[in-house]
Amino acid sequence: MLPIRDCVQQTPGYVPGEQPQTTDYIKLNTNENPYAPPDEIFNNLEEELKKVRLYPDPVSTKLRKAAGEVFGFSYEQILAGNGSDDILNIALRTFVNPGETVAFLDLTYSLYETIAKVHGATIQTISTNENFELDSPLICPEAKLIFVASPNPPLGKHLNRQYLKETCEQATGVVLIDEAYVDFSDEDHWDFIKEYDNVIVSRTMSKSYSLAGMRVGFGISSREIIEQMNKVRDSYNLDRIAQTLGANCFQFQDYFQSIWQKVRTTRNRLIASLRNLDFFVFDSDANFVLASPQWIEASDLYTKLKERKVLVRYFKHPRISNYIRITVGTDAEIDRLLEVIKQLKNES
Amino acid sequence: MLPIRDCVQQTPGYVPGEQPQTTDYIKLNTNENPYAPPDEIFNNLEEELKKVRLYPDPVSTKLRKAAGEVFGFSYEQILAGNGSDDILNIALRTFVNPGETVAFLDLTYSLYETIAKVHGATIQTISTNENFELDSPLICPEAKLIFVASPNPPLGKHLNRQYLKETCEQATGVVLIDEAYVDFSDEDHWDFIKEYDNVIVSRTMSKSYSLAGMRVGFGISSREIIEQMNKVRDSYNLDRIAQTLGANCFQFQDYFQSIWQKVRTTRNRLIASLRNLDFFVFDSDANFVLASPQWIEASDLYTKLKERKVLVRYFKHPRISNYIRITVGTDAEIDRLLEVIKQLKNES
Repeated sequence: MLPIRDCVQQTPGYVPGEQPQTTDYIKLNTNENPYAPPDEIFNNLEEELKKVRLYPDPVSTKLRKAAGEVFGFSYEQILAGNGSDDILNIALRTFVNPGETVAFLDLTYSLYETIAKVHGATIQTISTNENFELDSPLICPEAKLIFVASPNPPLGKHLNRQYLKETCEQATGVVLIDEAYVDFSDEDHWDFIKEYDNVIVSRTMSKSYSLAGMRVGFGISSREIIEQMNKVRDSYNLDRIAQTLGANCFQFQDYFQSIWQKVRTTRNRLIASLRNLDFFVFDSDANFVLASPQWIEASDLYTKLKERKVLVRYFKHPRISNYIRITVGTDAEIDRLLEVIKQLKNES
Repeated sequence: MLPIRDCVQQTPGYVPGEQPQTTDYIKLNTNENPYAPPDEIFNNLEEELKKVRLYPDPVSTKLRKAAGEVFGFSYEQILAGNGSDDILNIALRTFVNPGETVAFLDLTYSLYETIAKVHGATIQTISTNENFELDSPLICPEAKLIFVASPNPPLGKHLNRQYLKETCEQATGVVLIDEAYVDFSDEDHWDFIKEYDNVIVSRTMSKSYSLAGMRVGFGISSREIIEQMNKVRDSYNLDRIAQTLGANCFQFQDYFQSIWQKVRTTRNRLIASLRNLDFFVFDSDANFVLASPQWIEASDLYTKLKERKVLVRYFKHPRISNYIRITVGTDAEIDRLLEVIKQLKNES
């Protein structure tokens, strides 16, 4: 008998969105940025590739300093992760003993549940209201760690700021605010880090910085918290090229701000168009929208779109079983999506 | 009070070897391959860089298939890791509940101890004899997991094969054989995977495949074990470029075999030269040697070499406090090392 831990044996494992490695799909299913990063980020790559036989900087100093400049924090308050998923996992392993409690909303990034289960943590879900929003702060006195995303998927809207503030204030454990989508909105939660000593903000370069392929994320918090999380981190968790491309992207803030604005413009047009096509659509602060067709089952729509080479995301979760989540693509991609939807609607 | 776990709070954290990011050192301290990989591995890189905004294949299929061809196993028996350190950590989190026992030798890769402590595992060390070798199999009936490296650092010699076999046979838990350095020797332990259902072999591309900068490693075992470990793995643990360069390297077996042979030739010359210079030197099956100068304190020698821009590794561990570990570099690098040592010896 192999000694597989119960918490591992009993967990089905995380199922990421489909990642077809062919290019014939319009890929609107995993919230990637439709715009490539500027070519200039590859300028010093050859130099790095010449050093590929050598270990990278174990503590990603240049990358953290570049992030610090943009985020407005000292690099000592920043932990670099192999994607922000790495940061979530590190937080769990720093603050939560197996058996202890992790809390998160009943409808949010589904990885929180998977990693908490694999870790053997006790899970406490906190209910959102019928609009998938907060009616009060997240209160869970026994939680060593609260994961809360704002903007919160799969809705994509920021959670009520005052309730979030009270969540940090009243938590007896650590609150990790997952800001994966924050650059597509007008708000952030940097001030919570300064105000409370139990707050971590996580960021990723996968969405707003067009680097999903490179796995670069950050945890930003107090020096004390970062120092402890750093012990749990794999000692060389980011390779040379990830560190380099990540640091380079931060040098092109103007470019990225312009594409965030483009995504927001396209998003608003997408929302309006879907509403015209008889969808119920939530407002969004992210680079995706959650939409419920009123004339077809969402699961059918997902399948028919896929047959026509348009990939969106469908979740089997009962509360959103009649929704699809659509990543905001380029204008041309969204035009094509809307065209296919119109055809399907006419046929229905 | 922040809820830092005791196992984290009480662990100092792993201290990796120095990684100066300047090029003025002769760097013989962290067992990197002195020879670059062939330029051809970069041929299809541009194509991958164009897709950098898109998530990578979450399960590293091409890379695992390429590894499988070389290793002689189905890719379903192979887990890809962000370096083999990732594999070690995943094994710990798959098989060992905090409080349960992990066993390893008293003198081996020091990361085993760090990650076991951070995980909150109970540690059982098994004694090596005065030559840092085994007198018997590793027996620890309460261990859920045994980490054992062969070749075993910091000595660099393979452990006795019969004792290792008996270790696998008698273990009640899982045995992970860390083969980080195996390509510089004539032996491997693939047959143990076939013979026993509780054996994992870990491999890294950091040493023999000249990819330390890219963090690519593997765990090879039964389908059942790999399936469970896969749940614990971060869902996108290897980025696009790491997957691509890793897979590409496996296409150049002839090249790599020729540099492994070169390293072995240089290693044997280094050992003979050091013995002539009044060092006690162990034989080695790896790309490094452990050597004790008989005419100077090892710590002094380390410092004096560093002042002269030659970086070797010194460990504060009491049993090897009069040894330095030297990575086998190019012939020119080893010539320079020996020249500096000669000067120091003449001055002593």
